[in-house]
Amino acid sequence: MEFIDKLNIYREKINASLDEVLKVQEPKLLYEPMKYIIEIGGKRIRPILCEIFYRMFNGEKDKVLYPALAIELLHNFTLVHDDIMDDDDKRRNKPTVHVKWDLAVGVLAGDGVISLAYKVLLKEKYESCDHINRIFTEGLLEVCEGQGFDKEFETRVDVTEPEYINMIDKKTSALLAVSAKIGAACANVDNELIEIGNQYGRALGLAFQIQDDYLDIAGDEKLLGKTYGSDVQKGKKTYLYIKAKEKLTGEDLYKFNEIIEKENVTREEILTVRDIYDRNGILDDTNNEIVRRIDLAKEAIEKLSKNYDTKELKEFTEYMLNRKF
Amino acid sequence: MEFIDKLNIYREKINASLDEVLKVQEPKLLYEPMKYIIEIGGKRIRPILCEIFYRMFNGEKDKVLYPALAIELLHNFTLVHDDIMDDDDKRRNKPTVHVKWDLAVGVLAGDGVISLAYKVLLKEKYESCDHINRIFTEGLLEVCEGQGFDKEFETRVDVTEPEYINMIDKKTSALLAVSAKIGAACANVDNELIEIGNQYGRALGLAFQIQDDYLDIAGDEKLLGKTYGSDVQKGKKTYLYIKAKEKLTGEDLYKFNEIIEKENVTREEILTVRDIYDRNGILDDTNNEIVRRIDLAKEAIEKLSKNYDTKELKEFTEYMLNRKF
Repeated sequence: MEFIDKLNIYREKINASLDEVLKVQEPKLLYEPMKYIIEIGGKRIRPILCEIFYRMFNGEKDKVLYPALAIELLHNFTLVHDDIMDDDDKRRNKPTVHVKWDLAVGVLAGDGVISLAYKVLLKEKYESCDHINRIFTEGLLEVCEGQGFDKEFETRVDVTEPEYINMIDKKTSALLAVSAKIGAACANVDNELIEIGNQYGRALGLAFQIQDDYLDIAGDEKLLGKTYGSDVQKGKKTYLYIKAKEKLTGEDLYKFNEIIEKENVTREEILTVRDIYDRNGILDDTNNEIVRRIDLAKEAIEKLSKNYDTKELKEFTEYMLNRKF
Repeated sequence: MEFIDKLNIYREKINASLDEVLKVQEPKLLYEPMKYIIEIGGKRIRPILCEIFYRMFNGEKDKVLYPALAIELLHNFTLVHDDIMDDDDKRRNKPTVHVKWDLAVGVLAGDGVISLAYKVLLKEKYESCDHINRIFTEGLLEVCEGQGFDKEFETRVDVTEPEYINMIDKKTSALLAVSAKIGAACANVDNELIEIGNQYGRALGLAFQIQDDYLDIAGDEKLLGKTYGSDVQKGKKTYLYIKAKEKLTGEDLYKFNEIIEKENVTREEILTVRDIYDRNGILDDTNNEIVRRIDLAKEAIEKLSKNYDTKELKEFTEYMLNRKF
């Protein structure tokens, strides 16, 4: 079977199960927006990664479902609250909860989703249940910390590369690491293997996020459509922005600052920033950093390949990172 | 020792321990508002009730501290998000988090506090750890449901008494029930005793909340100060409001509706509502309902008195319900 077909099977199972754990009941003002958030969808990357780790370690059939769903719920909790914090109107072309309903409902629906996440996590008993709860909770706190750093960075112009890496490690990688770790923990493997799951998830998350930064301006403009250069538009702190602040001098620095601080940036100006990034080796730096992180993820897979069938995990990694836009 | 002195000892221990579990660290934009919420204070009713149940059942010394702190954190999480949902500027005479910082920080700090609550809950291992986690999580979801009903009621004029009782049972009583139940569960008593804790907490919470409704308009005006009649001011659905909508007819109903729907209500009008409540037996109805709920709490205590020393629990109940304003 092609990997993409396997992915679809995983995804359908997860969606059907999410549907089951999230029945609309009273009060409707809580449960309807909760259901709406979940139904907006997404690629269900995290529960799929959780299940792949679990199966690789020969976990007993279906003993990973509820923790995997809980991770997806945790992820959706962060989305609905992040949309409020960033005042985003749309997600996947649909109005966000605080726009479709109102602010109060947005806050409350997020709170409901994280409550449900714990309820689902605790649905079944595991030998390692205490450990699973801890991994889950540390992940949740890390995601909050990541969002806190991200908010702090909005008002700073002197963010360093290690600070930026630490922020995306918490905001993006932590939950991928949680997925791999909980998949492993559900299969009752020892801590050494869980730690390899952590390494893999962290590396994958960083590679993915820095690639996201890269593709926003260096990707195929047509494929990206009207979001092309959106990070420059918003003056967002990205890996390329951090590198630019570190490396640029003279005319290029002046021009970069001018464009990045503007309210409305034209397509011409985005291309100017892209050119500045290119001429100063920032696109290369970023590419090198992505490759370095991918290599770290592959190293983790190699450690596992000695004793386990890592075919699915390799295919998943390919799927996550082979994007051109 | 006087009970009030014992309360202060409990409270100081809880505050010192909260201080320990909530150190300000990076990112400051997350941890400073989290600490601020906790330091605004409060009576620490819930962790004290948790500890009283634990000690009554002869729990091993100090094996209840972390779950008790987690409950106080859960409570504070609801406060910071409720303040956003209700757009309240002040809490205990201090600016609320979303006013002192901003909306994004308010949402995030609440999320941080509930994450920390779970981290603290999982700090120590208990025989009944799985059960404790479930009680805690069900309580959290109930509080969200209660808030959802409360929000729904804002736009309804036909809320029935059972609906109102169900709402405050979830919004106020659930967490007092959680406190008693977790205190009992930490002491490893059987489910029957945990269920008595539940009955007690539910009854106490309902008595307390309906008393709150009552005192807002029937309490001593001087003691209440400028908040006198604030529920009428806001047109809030209270036990008395529900009863009024059920019982009033003719001139009284017309007058009541007129005042309750006004933007700005004068002291004279509040006294008119009080008079309407009085003449139509609504103050008496409310008082009877409070007494009925107090009796249910006392019944629960009586069941425990056969085998346990309930002196502290009785004193605590007195302390909670003997208010004149």
